[in-house]
Amino acid sequence: MASDLNKHTYSSLLTRINTAASETTLIRRPDPGEFIDLLKLAVPGASRPIEEVIKDAHEIFSFRIAVSHPRFFSCIPSPASPLSKLGDCLTTAHNPFGGSWEASAGVCTIETGLIKWIAQIFGLPSSAGGQFVSGASMANLTAMVVARDQTLRVEERSNGVAYISEQTHFCVRKALRIIGIPDHQIREIKTDSKFRMNLSLLEKTIDEDLQNHRKPFLLVASCGTTNTGSIDALEDLARIAQGRRMWLHIDAAYGGSVAFSETHRSKVKDICFADSVAWDAHKWLFQTHGCGAVFFRDQSQSLESFSSTGDYVRDVECQEELPDPWNYGVELTRPARHMRLWFTLQVLGLQKFDQMICHGFELSRHLECMISTLDDWEIISPSSLAILNFRYAPQGVDLATLNQLNEAISKEIASRDVAVIFTSHLDNLVCLRMCTINPETSKDDIEHVVKSLDNIAREVHSPSRKEVLWRE
Amino acid sequence: MASDLNKHTYSSLLTRINTAASETTLIRRPDPGEFIDLLKLAVPGASRPIEEVIKDAHEIFSFRIAVSHPRFFSCIPSPASPLSKLGDCLTTAHNPFGGSWEASAGVCTIETGLIKWIAQIFGLPSSAGGQFVSGASMANLTAMVVARDQTLRVEERSNGVAYISEQTHFCVRKALRIIGIPDHQIREIKTDSKFRMNLSLLEKTIDEDLQNHRKPFLLVASCGTTNTGSIDALEDLARIAQGRRMWLHIDAAYGGSVAFSETHRSKVKDICFADSVAWDAHKWLFQTHGCGAVFFRDQSQSLESFSSTGDYVRDVECQEELPDPWNYGVELTRPARHMRLWFTLQVLGLQKFDQMICHGFELSRHLECMISTLDDWEIISPSSLAILNFRYAPQGVDLATLNQLNEAISKEIASRDVAVIFTSHLDNLVCLRMCTINPETSKDDIEHVVKSLDNIAREVHSPSRKEVLWRE
Repeated sequence: MASDLNKHTYSSLLTRINTAASETTLIRRPDPGEFIDLLKLAVPGASRPIEEVIKDAHEIFSFRIAVSHPRFFSCIPSPASPLSKLGDCLTTAHNPFGGSWEASAGVCTIETGLIKWIAQIFGLPSSAGGQFVSGASMANLTAMVVARDQTLRVEERSNGVAYISEQTHFCVRKALRIIGIPDHQIREIKTDSKFRMNLSLLEKTIDEDLQNHRKPFLLVASCGTTNTGSIDALEDLARIAQGRRMWLHIDAAYGGSVAFSETHRSKVKDICFADSVAWDAHKWLFQTHGCGAVFFRDQSQSLESFSSTGDYVRDVECQEELPDPWNYGVELTRPARHMRLWFTLQVLGLQKFDQMICHGFELSRHLECMISTLDDWEIISPSSLAILNFRYAPQGVDLATLNQLNEAISKEIASRDVAVIFTSHLDNLVCLRMCTINPETSKDDIEHVVKSLDNIAREVHSPSRKEVLWRE
Repeated sequence: MASDLNKHTYSSLLTRINTAASETTLIRRPDPGEFIDLLKLAVPGASRPIEEVIKDAHEIFSFRIAVSHPRFFSCIPSPASPLSKLGDCLTTAHNPFGGSWEASAGVCTIETGLIKWIAQIFGLPSSAGGQFVSGASMANLTAMVVARDQTLRVEERSNGVAYISEQTHFCVRKALRIIGIPDHQIREIKTDSKFRMNLSLLEKTIDEDLQNHRKPFLLVASCGTTNTGSIDALEDLARIAQGRRMWLHIDAAYGGSVAFSETHRSKVKDICFADSVAWDAHKWLFQTHGCGAVFFRDQSQSLESFSSTGDYVRDVECQEELPDPWNYGVELTRPARHMRLWFTLQVLGLQKFDQMICHGFELSRHLECMISTLDDWEIISPSSLAILNFRYAPQGVDLATLNQLNEAISKEIASRDVAVIFTSHLDNLVCLRMCTINPETSKDDIEHVVKSLDNIAREVHSPSRKEVLWRE
């Protein structure tokens, strides 16, 4: 077994870690026959040679959208550093039990120290703490449980009201539903022209709820919305929340990473006003999937929601001030998700992170500059945290046709294997949305993509080529 | 970078994957100085040589209890197969986005097929489905959200009652609190002499609640309790739940793996009665931490609780019958947790899994047999699913002293680096609890451990050596 593992791991695993994503095609989908084959392959049976299984594994993984490709610009790209992969492989090799300090004193101490340090660059006080979770869905959920428990008595829960904006990530509403706050207790506040929560509408809505004897308890702000990279007016929202004794949760899943860049940190400095923060290292901090974190201004508040125990762990429970992670979050058994980030930060150093984050901002400004100067194109939402929304909009074409045109451009540039640029909806306009945070993306890539977009736009818009517009 | 990664990964990562856990000490804790050093090491700064960081990483990981060691018998041991580690490293190298079918068609199809196959060996119908999650805490939580949503109208929630047993894992009560079912809506039913939920007490409690116009909605059964490996009377519980239109959730986090053994599958055949099931592959199926799953008798029910969407993913949403995992569970971004299990199953084959699971049963029976024939020792809970509780109990010694004696034995055998055997509480008795599922544990290990236990017991109980009993 051991020699098998050595031989094949070396040839296969490491080659893969070091393979540049740019060497692959952008999208591979299984055809119906391949789909059936995959379903069959899922089922175990007799033992099979490891070489064969490794080959199958690579084939399975190959059916995907290459979200780490330098010309994948959709959703939030996942440009994971090879160092994050290596750090996570090292962690897997040791397989620590991340739920208990006693069971994994080393990794738990690193987690405590790293969380404290990140809380500090977010501007949170020394009372702050938190833990790593699988991502923002879990971070938001964990924070909302504590928000609920700190602000509402059990008998008040069905009367509590939470406030989000129409640009709040959909996992926030989902988390609220999960913890027992149904839709009729959630207010979705409209956004202003910069896609930030409209403050006067928010105050008006809260006041109405108070007049109706409801109990406003939670205000969810965004630091880096997924659609447009917008940052809500965090300081103003903090003032509104404090004045009404509401909990301020900041979803900084995307934007929080900017705090790791000394150059750009000031853009997100108002995270410091949060009672709780959700953040993803697997977005703009170049980590593999499953690396997010939740922070609390006062760590002890999460203990009140999550502390619990069992007979069979009585000998490993910490008697001291060292926190057992299982008492501060949802999970008992959990992997040590932070070690990959620790590893990447140590090897690359903070200056390199600053450069990598700066690069994303620069690409986005370069893109914005190019689009602005092109005929028949318009910016819908300016570059914010390296996200730009724009569209092809020649004069004299009606909205429905423009929307179809931009959808066709999005499909065509992917089918030509040039770039993945999904559309988004902003105020009923179908936009092309590009998030340019991949450090492997070059200015040449951006220029090539813009040129291709423009060529494709003129092709699909040409009356003689109408069929292109409508093809799937 | 690439060559650095190759060189150091080869020498360090693979050596570690192949290092037998038995070669290490059982417990290493940081002393106060080392603890301070670890906290300092957590904080990033300037770039550091990769060799140095890898060395530090191994040092960090070394402060732990060796939960995969063949003589670690506490909690549920984590005897992860090297193949699980390799499978997970391959997954990390590809870093698929496991939340969306379109983004990762290959791994999502394997997940669908594998979940369907496991549901089948659990005896669930073809309508069943589910998904991989980080572990039983999340699996139980996910199931309970669906149970709540399928059985209670929103306005009934504060009146709903959930039934667990006093041996139910503590993460179940915690999950209920998280989703908004507070303690006063949870009934903890006493267990019978075999630590199974007492059926007549359960029925009596439900009837009382009904008379008080409460709404019983959820019955949580255990298939393999953590303390004693007990299996509740699942078929009887199913009858009780069905008769009262309650949801039957089975926490098979530990016991579910027995369904992978053709030899022992019949022991857990009544999982088939569940509306939902929680199961951990990182317990008795030899996977690395963070590999659990949740199952639903009717997969579509989870869609009703978790379906949600956002503007920026409109182009990747599945139009067909292919399920996007994010709509069937809590998380959006999620790693492909199942690929390590798929990999291990394919390489080892089902027959090997049967043998590995059988080995655990055999070790436990061997241990039980040895303890039964030793003077002054008694079995407190017989071998069930490879878990045995027993204690040193010489005649004429009062209960308090016996409890202290057994605690001292547990501490002493660990401090001698022979074995980790934590104590558990069963009916006020402090027991030594051994879970013998590690395939690397030999009968010789068991015999050595029993001999050591007996020697230590007689030493700590000797009046002339009284100080040993009381030392920390």
